[in-house]
Amino acid sequence: MKIYNPPIKEFKFILEAIGYDELSSISKYSGYDLPTVIELLSEAGKFCVNELLPLNRLGDEKGVTFDPKTHDVKLPEEFVALYQKYVENGFGGLSQPEEFGGGGAPHLLGLLIGEMVLATNKSFSMGPGLTKDLILAIRMNGSDEQKTTYLPPLISGEVSGTMCLTEPQAGTDLGLVSTKAVPNQDGKSYSLTGTKIWITFGEHNFTENILHLVLAKLPDAPPGIKGISAFLVPKVLANGDRNKIFCGGIEHKLGINASPTCVMNLEGAEGYLMGEPHKGMRTMFVMMNSARLGVGQEGVGLTEIAYQTALAFSKDRKQSRSLNPEKVDKSSSADNILVHPDVRRMLLNIKSTNEAMRCLVFYTGKLISVSHSHPDESRREDAEDIISLLTPVIKSYLTERGFLNISEAMQVCGGAGYTTEWNIEQYLRDERIAMIYEGTNHIQALDLVGRKLPMHGGRLVQKFQKEIETFLKENAANPDMGEFLGPIKESFEKLQDVTMWMMKNAMSDPEVVGAVSSNYLNAFALATLSYMWGIQVKHALGQDSKEAKAKLKTARYFNGNILPEIDSIISIIKKGKSNMMDFDPEEL
Amino acid sequence: MKIYNPPIKEFKFILEAIGYDELSSISKYSGYDLPTVIELLSEAGKFCVNELLPLNRLGDEKGVTFDPKTHDVKLPEEFVALYQKYVENGFGGLSQPEEFGGGGAPHLLGLLIGEMVLATNKSFSMGPGLTKDLILAIRMNGSDEQKTTYLPPLISGEVSGTMCLTEPQAGTDLGLVSTKAVPNQDGKSYSLTGTKIWITFGEHNFTENILHLVLAKLPDAPPGIKGISAFLVPKVLANGDRNKIFCGGIEHKLGINASPTCVMNLEGAEGYLMGEPHKGMRTMFVMMNSARLGVGQEGVGLTEIAYQTALAFSKDRKQSRSLNPEKVDKSSSADNILVHPDVRRMLLNIKSTNEAMRCLVFYTGKLISVSHSHPDESRREDAEDIISLLTPVIKSYLTERGFLNISEAMQVCGGAGYTTEWNIEQYLRDERIAMIYEGTNHIQALDLVGRKLPMHGGRLVQKFQKEIETFLKENAANPDMGEFLGPIKESFEKLQDVTMWMMKNAMSDPEVVGAVSSNYLNAFALATLSYMWGIQVKHALGQDSKEAKAKLKTARYFNGNILPEIDSIISIIKKGKSNMMDFDPEEL
Repeated sequence: MKIYNPPIKEFKFILEAIGYDELSSISKYSGYDLPTVIELLSEAGKFCVNELLPLNRLGDEKGVTFDPKTHDVKLPEEFVALYQKYVENGFGGLSQPEEFGGGGAPHLLGLLIGEMVLATNKSFSMGPGLTKDLILAIRMNGSDEQKTTYLPPLISGEVSGTMCLTEPQAGTDLGLVSTKAVPNQDGKSYSLTGTKIWITFGEHNFTENILHLVLAKLPDAPPGIKGISAFLVPKVLANGDRNKIFCGGIEHKLGINASPTCVMNLEGAEGYLMGEPHKGMRTMFVMMNSARLGVGQEGVGLTEIAYQTALAFSKDRKQSRSLNPEKVDKSSSADNILVHPDVRRMLLNIKSTNEAMRCLVFYTGKLISVSHSHPDESRREDAEDIISLLTPVIKSYLTERGFLNISEAMQVCGGAGYTTEWNIEQYLRDERIAMIYEGTNHIQALDLVGRKLPMHGGRLVQKFQKEIETFLKENAANPDMGEFLGPIKESFEKLQDVTMWMMKNAMSDPEVVGAVSSNYLNAFALATLSYMWGIQVKHALGQDSKEAKAKLKTARYFNGNILPEIDSIISIIKKGKSNMMDFDPEEL
Repeated sequence: MKIYNPPIKEFKFILEAIGYDELSSISKYSGYDLPTVIELLSEAGKFCVNELLPLNRLGDEKGVTFDPKTHDVKLPEEFVALYQKYVENGFGGLSQPEEFGGGGAPHLLGLLIGEMVLATNKSFSMGPGLTKDLILAIRMNGSDEQKTTYLPPLISGEVSGTMCLTEPQAGTDLGLVSTKAVPNQDGKSYSLTGTKIWITFGEHNFTENILHLVLAKLPDAPPGIKGISAFLVPKVLANGDRNKIFCGGIEHKLGINASPTCVMNLEGAEGYLMGEPHKGMRTMFVMMNSARLGVGQEGVGLTEIAYQTALAFSKDRKQSRSLNPEKVDKSSSADNILVHPDVRRMLLNIKSTNEAMRCLVFYTGKLISVSHSHPDESRREDAEDIISLLTPVIKSYLTERGFLNISEAMQVCGGAGYTTEWNIEQYLRDERIAMIYEGTNHIQALDLVGRKLPMHGGRLVQKFQKEIETFLKENAANPDMGEFLGPIKESFEKLQDVTMWMMKNAMSDPEVVGAVSSNYLNAFALATLSYMWGIQVKHALGQDSKEAKAKLKTARYFNGNILPEIDSIISIIKKGKSNMMDFDPEEL
């Protein structure tokens, strides 16, 4: 039972709430006013429902095959045909720069379409997703020649892209990378040797050529993270020769079975330095930040489809009697399960978090477009600061809550939810990896606490705090907003208090940062989501629709039944590290 | 990477802590003193590691096959051979009555072995598990003839058993059962017609014969739950004829792939009434209560094997540097990940909950043996009261936390955790169903709040409260206990306060019960687990071993870093129902 209605109304509501107008008033985006965007989204939504969704289970069941003799990796032929359709429809290049063949739309539009693509076929979405990240890295760090050579075929979909970071001994800690890059005699190219693992779409039969971004060390590299350089390594060289980068095997996984996860062996592969020597991590961070937003969005997209499935199930299923005699349906031997408060509790746990999480992704996505193109430099800088601050929060919290949400959707469906028939089980499996890849969730927490909070003397978080304060002040006079402003104010006060606690205790002992940062990130996320509800409520109060009323109710549910989680989290943070670090390893 | 060391030391510690002596001092169990039990457990543990564990992944991959022509369901031949070995070893019958061929050991011993069996091969464990439940139902409700006929072959493992409850329209709400039982002309047997779904091991090739316990309605049955009768329906009749109960299909599921989940069609099958007409639910409750304890234990057993896997991974893996310069291993390019506080946080989230959950299962298992055999009637009644109270808590909380724990273990292993190689992904899939079957977790919560709390004028919970108070008083003079008694006292006070709130608000509005009971059960569980830590700490304080020291530290972690969850939960409970029930269905 594959159920998915593209949430176009919801997209429209959020775009209005976060002030999409600011983008369409930028001359570069003048061709993408709200009605145009909504039309494009509707078209993309149809494609997702008609083309991507029907193949989602097939991909899971057929998976990918690897031939150790030829090093070939094959996806099901239906997926290859699907990729061609996807490329022909041009959705992938919509938000890419016009000068290289893209549609010139704001980055945000790509994110909006992205949610539907990954909701309906996450395995498939990972191919174009990685290509998009590589495009961004080349745009930011490639030479003019590299841009002219590689961007057009990547944007058109003729060539696909990968990120080759991890090695067996170097996962979270990329400083340990040992792939070597030795200059060739031509004075231009390098010869790369080493082994990369967990390479998504490292090898496949969607495109003839694949462009790999590979992290490696030059002979004169300083040790650790400061000695890493980035190289572009095509599968097929410009002269048509097969480059010496080969798939050595694929992983067998819990999910995303139609997304090949490859071991890639570089056996003297020809590569071209991108950016400055030893500054490869700068390139990677650009790419990873974009990728991390996309990964966070996986939590939202897969939650959405799981929620719609559970809601459809619960509107159909009759079981037991209402606890309220007035609600008993006498024409039937049982009542619809939506009369049961606990079914609503589960559905609302999902709905009230997911709508705020979506708002957060689009709010940040809008800022990305602002940072790309706003005429005012200080507005661009402000946007960049908030993006930097929120990226780890989005990647970590949304993937964790997304996993819980999908499990909750499964619970709504009872035994049916556990079967392949309703497909929620696939969403659960496909989602779980999002908590791990693109930097495990704890790495996000360290990024937030160890880098983003202190960055520029605390400027990022001060700006965000300032924005909240302005929002609270601007709406203080609106009596209808009162009940929604209180929770925002209180949760940010709590956050500020625990931030002070943490700063004080972390200064004397950095292990405290490690001990509390994962919980701190979750507290930060909850407060931020209450603000996202504030933004939505403000917009809803001006309207009289059924959707607007539902927004107010859902915000109330979030503030009453989800946000209180922040108190336990803060209490646990304040326990610090001792309960963890007191153990000898053999006592574990 | 399948890692499992039978936790025999831990079993021993808990058995001592919960006062196993009380059981072995009962004359019936005199042959099972603690040293004997430990030896039996070691033997069983070896069997699990050597026989069950190596086939766990094979079962998942090969799964079961169904032939629609013959209605046959086949498990992999390796599983059939394994079942023979299991039967020959006699572990299944150890806790069964001697008069029917069992070993006469306390029920608790079966639970202890059960944890290891389901940890190492959950799919396999479900066959013997259901048989055990059926044995119990026949012991409690069968006629003497039924006992003599059916118990010996069930206990020896020659025949296996099932529970046929659910129908397509009757899951949670068994009152909607529509399978009909019409008396046959022989004046003894009945002819049963209907369709049952989700029948675990409903058909298979382990045994020649299968005995089904089937819920059905007699022609003169009153409507609803009070019109249900229980029937014994063998696959092969005493005269050797094939009975008309056939498998009509099997489910495809997220996990437990080597445990057949069958549609069973009764096409005029011959069955024999067990117990009184229309009193079938009484039989089912006996069976279900036992089954629910076993399901709760799935959370513990699968968490244990996932934890051991994650711990082994983290003791081997080196990545990044310690945040504490003194802990940096200069002989290596990275430190063992156990130096990272967050790795410990994840491991301790698992360990500190699982050891308390295990203690709760064995504490309750001991009470079951007390209720069976203690010479003092009032002690037996007390035991029964506490079992009734805690059964829904165990079933629901342990399965939910178990699922989260296994996911946390996966997170410790990063990308490796997501692959099939480390097998945690199978534990996660196999565990998830436990939150659904044997009564969904919310049904447990309604059982706790709607039945168990008010039962006998609140006698059950008053007795439990009394036990806690006695424990607190008895240990008040021990200064080493102080830090552990405080959290128990406080959490039970909080629980009492929210119980009062709930009783007050539920009296005027039963929908409030539905809205808050799932959270209430979790609050109840957390307080109960703090008591389980108190019991363990008390025992540990008398010892000087490494294990005993670890127990104190783990208890501190639980009280500081897990127990505070109770505050948020209680705050959410006190929001009542309005945030849920204010929605029109189309607003969801």
